[in-house]
Amino acid sequence: MALFSIEEYQERVRKTKMSMTEKGIDVLVVSDPANMNYLTGYDGWSFYVPQVVIVSLEEDQPIWIGRGMDANGAKHTTYLSNERIIGYADDYVQSPIKHPMQVVADEIKSRGWDTKTIGTEMDAYYFSAKSFIELQKNLPNAKFHDANLLVSWVRIIKSAREIEFMQKAGKIAERVMQKAIDTVAPGVRECDAVAEIYRTQIRGTDTYGGDYTSFVPMMPCGEKTSTPHLTWTDEPYQNEIAVNMELAACHNRYHSPLARTMYIGKNPPGNLVDTSKVVVEGCNKALDAIKPGVTCEEIELVWRQVIAQAGLEKESRIGYSVGLNYPPDWGEHTASLRPGDKTVLEPNMTFHMILGMWMDDWGFECSESFRVTDGGHETFANFPRKLFIKE
Amino acid sequence: MALFSIEEYQERVRKTKMSMTEKGIDVLVVSDPANMNYLTGYDGWSFYVPQVVIVSLEEDQPIWIGRGMDANGAKHTTYLSNERIIGYADDYVQSPIKHPMQVVADEIKSRGWDTKTIGTEMDAYYFSAKSFIELQKNLPNAKFHDANLLVSWVRIIKSAREIEFMQKAGKIAERVMQKAIDTVAPGVRECDAVAEIYRTQIRGTDTYGGDYTSFVPMMPCGEKTSTPHLTWTDEPYQNEIAVNMELAACHNRYHSPLARTMYIGKNPPGNLVDTSKVVVEGCNKALDAIKPGVTCEEIELVWRQVIAQAGLEKESRIGYSVGLNYPPDWGEHTASLRPGDKTVLEPNMTFHMILGMWMDDWGFECSESFRVTDGGHETFANFPRKLFIKE
Repeated sequence: MALFSIEEYQERVRKTKMSMTEKGIDVLVVSDPANMNYLTGYDGWSFYVPQVVIVSLEEDQPIWIGRGMDANGAKHTTYLSNERIIGYADDYVQSPIKHPMQVVADEIKSRGWDTKTIGTEMDAYYFSAKSFIELQKNLPNAKFHDANLLVSWVRIIKSAREIEFMQKAGKIAERVMQKAIDTVAPGVRECDAVAEIYRTQIRGTDTYGGDYTSFVPMMPCGEKTSTPHLTWTDEPYQNEIAVNMELAACHNRYHSPLARTMYIGKNPPGNLVDTSKVVVEGCNKALDAIKPGVTCEEIELVWRQVIAQAGLEKESRIGYSVGLNYPPDWGEHTASLRPGDKTVLEPNMTFHMILGMWMDDWGFECSESFRVTDGGHETFANFPRKLFIKE
Repeated sequence: MALFSIEEYQERVRKTKMSMTEKGIDVLVVSDPANMNYLTGYDGWSFYVPQVVIVSLEEDQPIWIGRGMDANGAKHTTYLSNERIIGYADDYVQSPIKHPMQVVADEIKSRGWDTKTIGTEMDAYYFSAKSFIELQKNLPNAKFHDANLLVSWVRIIKSAREIEFMQKAGKIAERVMQKAIDTVAPGVRECDAVAEIYRTQIRGTDTYGGDYTSFVPMMPCGEKTSTPHLTWTDEPYQNEIAVNMELAACHNRYHSPLARTMYIGKNPPGNLVDTSKVVVEGCNKALDAIKPGVTCEEIELVWRQVIAQAGLEKESRIGYSVGLNYPPDWGEHTASLRPGDKTVLEPNMTFHMILGMWMDDWGFECSESFRVTDGGHETFANFPRKLFIKE
């Protein structure tokens, strides 16, 4: 059973078709699992094989095409009529001679759309170079048009129910971060701390549960805090080191990420303490600047000016649109908080603002997930912004 | 610090170059995160942005190219010299105008390889259609050659240390499955059971820890056992239903998957009980047939004949090569246990044999991960093969 009303899915499809019309696209082939979910409700860990949702200007409901064994999963999770769910035979899977995009092309041909303009998500996860070449080869009379992020941009303003899911994820994220802070200690193995984090993510609260997050917990410690995307080992934490904790919670595939840094020991280095104060001030000021009508790059400039006063600079962006997603990324790849991004903030856009400073052999992180409100912003989690110190 | 000896990495690169030479490839651009790890040791959750390892016949060490903030991660996890690690600027990330493959092309040009034959992994995860087009556009004088699975095939026979990691994962997998069986019960929320499974996966044992698995726990219950890739909800388990549990454990990115089905209640349906017996017999017979010299399709035939005697058939393959991997798949996409696959088994090939029967509104699963030994096979987990019943 799909998690949103049929009307909400229909509205999403309607907006998608509007964007297709503007771009001259007749038939859209959607491979990004978050976009497939957004348009149909489909939710399953089956994106490791090619699968698509097709939206045609000529038809009301999208079509789901995936592996035969997953068709029952589509029947259970989407709002689509059963005849809109098409499973392909198993010998198309990871075959040296067959490819599932041949089935997709056949379906397009059988509906007489093979001379139309077909949009494909050229830089989406799980739409391989081979997938595109197979589509082209089997639809020689079609015109192809890059529709990368077309649906992702439709997703940028969240509905009331989507916001509710992210708020719920934010409440779980508070518990997750508290559990991390409570558990990480000298002598505790990194894997044992991460085990408690996972458990807290998935249990959720007494009234609703948690879902898997699109990034695993990222917990570099010691010198490894100089880089953001390392995970964990089975070594025990040492004393007098920092731990960066980029965590999150997820509810019904909607995310609220949350990052903090904790120092274990009595003697945090002066540069870490000083940097943490500047970063937290920059985070506070940038959040205070959030409101409808402001652009993404203006928010980044607020941050940039705060840290420049302390002689710091950061090359990488400070945030991105966030929400519904699947591994490997909870970011939506649309708006980023960085120079040059002129996206104008509107109510119920949702972002993960992550202020991470990664130096040669140390680093500090502080992040918040929030929505733009009519007059400012609302963070999804309520958690102190500071360098945590565990003596 | 890389997890294998420099000599082992060098041997992997040597075998890769042999395969490149056979196929007429001068320069190999590797995007698959498992292949990147295999050749260099690189381990980080950064494959959500384009990153590659380049192997050239002209140079000893591979080159790692990734996002600037991840270069320190490459220094921490690979055996490469620092000058072989190249980070690109952050404004290449998810940009509408720049693309990281431009940096990859520039590196290839700067080394004078832009008129060579370049291999790319055309159907790999995280090598998008756009990535390929950008490479082609920026290397107009190069000849491109599909090198999909080239490194994956080099990976098919595991070293002693790789087998050790999979054996360790198998010991964790036993604990994971036992925890699932102990925890799933009427009235327990699905998410609370999965939380205990995750915790057990990551804690590992007292002497070594667990890593994240490339699939999340797949735990469809009730009618949803008719399809394999649904995850979990926050509803409590009902009485008199079945739960399919496709689980795994991972140690240092090496996997041992393990699947079982449990019936909760006193009255398991006759067709489930009968099917479970046939499937377990088929599993036992197929495993008994494993030995060097036999082909993958011959193993599948043993299974097929057992279930045919009971009037059953299964369209989908019954297993695949498994080992080192990253989400979204622990399978290696090389050998599959299915008709037409003539791969000859050799010692220390490793497979996940999964016998899953998915019917209209019910299903049954039983799986084992194993290595081929000199005289037969060794399963990585030791766990009873049967329909579990929890009254």
